[in-house]
Amino acid sequence: MNTQDIARTFTEMCAKSEFDQAGKKFWSDDIVSREPMTGDMAVLKGRKAVEGKGEWWYANHTVHSVQVEGPYVHGDQFVVRFKMQVTPKSGEMSGQRLNLDEVGLYTVKNGKIVEERFFTGGRPGA
Amino acid sequence: MNTQDIARTFTEMCAKSEFDQAGKKFWSDDIVSREPMTGDMAVLKGRKAVEGKGEWWYANHTVHSVQVEGPYVHGDQFVVRFKMQVTPKSGEMSGQRLNLDEVGLYTVKNGKIVEERFFTGGRPGA
Repeated sequence: MNTQDIARTFTEMCAKSEFDQAGKKFWSDDIVSREPMTGDMAVLKGRKAVEGKGEWWYANHTVHSVQVEGPYVHGDQFVVRFKMQVTPKSGEMSGQRLNLDEVGLYTVKNGKIVEERFFTGGRPGA
Repeated sequence: MNTQDIARTFTEMCAKSEFDQAGKKFWSDDIVSREPMTGDMAVLKGRKAVEGKGEWWYANHTVHSVQVEGPYVHGDQFVVRFKMQVTPKSGEMSGQRLNLDEVGLYTVKNGKIVEERFFTGGRPGA
């Protein structure tokens, strides 16, 4: 599969909320996941760590809706936009319904996603 | 200005269709502009070349509407989504009203944009 095909399949799976399966299918074992924050979760390396983040996230959020746009492709990279309505189950925003709006930038190498980098947009709750 | 401030101001100017002025204000003299294509326009280096591309583009397209979303920020990079309705004045799509949907990934260094990388999405005309 070339980057265009990977991007399309990955995005279609995300649009069906199959984030977990999409990751299992396309993440490289050496996947690096970068969040726009400081602290322990800012950079995670390796499939096990990144899968752990996903499990933590699902355990701690109720997902009401998912809207996915893209993919947008350039060479070996692609961008997907995610709009989600979620309610955190823990932390300072616990119980508040939030509108998340972010994009992911994915880098592909040898048919696998080797990096995902998330960009925060909009205003939570807006 | 930090990246967040540059991203916000740049995006606001784009939303007012002030693309040219936004570039003049924020492009580094060493700006590199990358389009998702092959050929002469794929990679342009330097402010003069990139301004020339903008002038060529405006001379060859009628812009009917512009919708801008973002910015989405991560560290020294930000993403802006552009939806435009345009009619090319030349080339094989000449006279056809097109719906363009793309995102730009911008990299900031020392308060200036040093790289812009465009990602193609959707289907032209869709």
